[in-house]
Amino acid sequence: MQFTLEHICEGSKARAATLETDHGSIRTPIFMPVGTQGTVKAVEQRELREMEAQIILANTYHLALRPGTEVLEEHGGLHRFMNWDGPVLTDSGGYQVYSLSELRKIEHDGVTFQSHIDGSYHRFTPERVLDIQRSIGSDIMMILDECPPADCGYDYARRSGELTLDWAAKARRWIDRTGPLYGHQQLAFGIVQGNVFEELRETSARGLMDIGFDGYAIGGLAVGEPAEVMYRITEFTTDILPQDRPRYLMGVGTPVNILEAIDRGVDMFDCVMPTRNGRNAMVFTPDGPLMIKKERFLHEFVPIDAECNCYACSNFTRAYIAHLFRTQEILGLQLASLHNLSFYLRLTRDARSAILKDRFPLWKEAFIRRYHSGRGSDTSTNEQPRSNL
Amino acid sequence: MQFTLEHICEGSKARAATLETDHGSIRTPIFMPVGTQGTVKAVEQRELREMEAQIILANTYHLALRPGTEVLEEHGGLHRFMNWDGPVLTDSGGYQVYSLSELRKIEHDGVTFQSHIDGSYHRFTPERVLDIQRSIGSDIMMILDECPPADCGYDYARRSGELTLDWAAKARRWIDRTGPLYGHQQLAFGIVQGNVFEELRETSARGLMDIGFDGYAIGGLAVGEPAEVMYRITEFTTDILPQDRPRYLMGVGTPVNILEAIDRGVDMFDCVMPTRNGRNAMVFTPDGPLMIKKERFLHEFVPIDAECNCYACSNFTRAYIAHLFRTQEILGLQLASLHNLSFYLRLTRDARSAILKDRFPLWKEAFIRRYHSGRGSDTSTNEQPRSNL
Repeated sequence: MQFTLEHICEGSKARAATLETDHGSIRTPIFMPVGTQGTVKAVEQRELREMEAQIILANTYHLALRPGTEVLEEHGGLHRFMNWDGPVLTDSGGYQVYSLSELRKIEHDGVTFQSHIDGSYHRFTPERVLDIQRSIGSDIMMILDECPPADCGYDYARRSGELTLDWAAKARRWIDRTGPLYGHQQLAFGIVQGNVFEELRETSARGLMDIGFDGYAIGGLAVGEPAEVMYRITEFTTDILPQDRPRYLMGVGTPVNILEAIDRGVDMFDCVMPTRNGRNAMVFTPDGPLMIKKERFLHEFVPIDAECNCYACSNFTRAYIAHLFRTQEILGLQLASLHNLSFYLRLTRDARSAILKDRFPLWKEAFIRRYHSGRGSDTSTNEQPRSNL
Repeated sequence: MQFTLEHICEGSKARAATLETDHGSIRTPIFMPVGTQGTVKAVEQRELREMEAQIILANTYHLALRPGTEVLEEHGGLHRFMNWDGPVLTDSGGYQVYSLSELRKIEHDGVTFQSHIDGSYHRFTPERVLDIQRSIGSDIMMILDECPPADCGYDYARRSGELTLDWAAKARRWIDRTGPLYGHQQLAFGIVQGNVFEELRETSARGLMDIGFDGYAIGGLAVGEPAEVMYRITEFTTDILPQDRPRYLMGVGTPVNILEAIDRGVDMFDCVMPTRNGRNAMVFTPDGPLMIKKERFLHEFVPIDAECNCYACSNFTRAYIAHLFRTQEILGLQLASLHNLSFYLRLTRDARSAILKDRFPLWKEAFIRRYHSGRGSDTSTNEQPRSNL
């Protein structure tokens, strides 16, 4: 694994780095569009390139159920199946088992759950989810974790953290005993758990570092806790994690959440917000989000975001996009998703640029001030699942 | 109006021609993608260019209800509103009143109906639908007609034909008294009605020709009558219509329907079939249509149509597109719509090329033989509305 820490911004913990994969370099901080089922919803693969997406996320849980590992292997893995030759990160399925499945039984060696699609029974173990990720051929595999709810309490969180650490050790052994199926390198990231308890977060982080992974994710946040708690736990954790490994804050978040986490030393992000909210007619602008379906937008003959050079903003007015949503036209979902992802990718590109110029704190302040003082407001909470559907 | 008849194919009535509009030339025979509400469903405007769409269709009825003429005029017409700078034809709304509205009362001077959206009352007259089309700024306006059902009987069809002819005279007078709003020329086509009765079709066609229009549409077909009747009435009508004017068979149809009508002297077509069927997972190939959602396609690592150079066929396998439909992903609708429209546009391009080489009848035979003998079959009937939703 090659991870180059290029710069830490003056007056901040914000980092600019490069992570090399066999499918290309990832310049961080980076937002990863979510392509749960092997497609970023309502967006074409060439459009992901156009908006300069550097890596996308897919989900082990969903791909294991459909199309299944047999079909994926038959086609030489997810990259070929979906015709995306850039890097792919796959979530392990731990969070989906927690958030989507009807029934789940967590045992020492894994978890049994019912599919949210047809109720069929499945079993994930630390080894099994890696096997699936070998079939998928993701560039970055995540290990299986248990993701407890925000309000689980200390005792549950402690036991859950121990289980996750045990699974991580098993995962590490399995990774070392197996190899990639398609010739390209597959990195593996551990997931720090421990809920809102610093002591447990530290145990989890140090335990994972002892085992040793290519990168470290912070899981179990953005599951309902207040933003300030999320920021505190994030910073507490990044302070422990090694500088020479990438850090990934799972499932976060709003534009402001992302900047605050970058400021606290996080490199990688994913969130369904740009696409899911886009499909619900919420579009992001530097002046805050807009509910583009409102009637008043039918009279605005300007782009969603005049500073954006995405296909939607270069070609269509707010009026037209409002009309598309008001008439339930699919093109509305396409354009809003495309713009919102472009907005998020520009956000992390601009953040990186500010970091390299030692201007991140000032730039962040200015962004947040404008974002909160604008026509819209960042009404969405940080209560975003780290995953999808 | 400039319409140049370039060639009539040997052994056929099939024509190659060029129709000039202020937004570009249309080389016929041509298929017009249907963009009812100012968007071709699930397809981007740049993709319409990419697939070489030469003209698209929009609907007066739908655009009058949403976004309404005020918004359209405010933005300088539909071309600017939707950012499509190619030619646009608008249907008059006659068919939509017949097929979509809850209640309709046809009177001598127009039709009162309830919106299918909110039940509000609206009134279309021959003059009003032209005013709306002036607001839209379509390159080709259609006059208001009454479109009776296939089984309406002779007496109803006769009276309806008289009414439509009367409306056509009023429309002609209104066209001559009004002008375009945005500086570009707006052609007007009459619509031949008369149901399945040759005598009524002749009266209608000759009546419209006496009034004089820039082109002539054949309406009231593809509304439930057998294909053979549609072909007979089409040929009977084109035999009457002037050679030096474009002919447009409204709402037709399957690939085979289109070729049979080209053979009988029709120049222009529109149909929702490629997009609507695409959204229902039916994709067209030279070997017949495929229901791409079927499980077996998950194992086919080839494009929908190896002879097609559309984005979908150049980049994605049947397996991937099957997966997208099976997981209800929007990208499935996008790719199937894009491919199907590309297929229809290639069909009419190839037809034109065959006509210019005096090979149309043989080429048509070969196409139909292959299309019917393939894996799929042209199961869809000709019972396609000329319109949309």
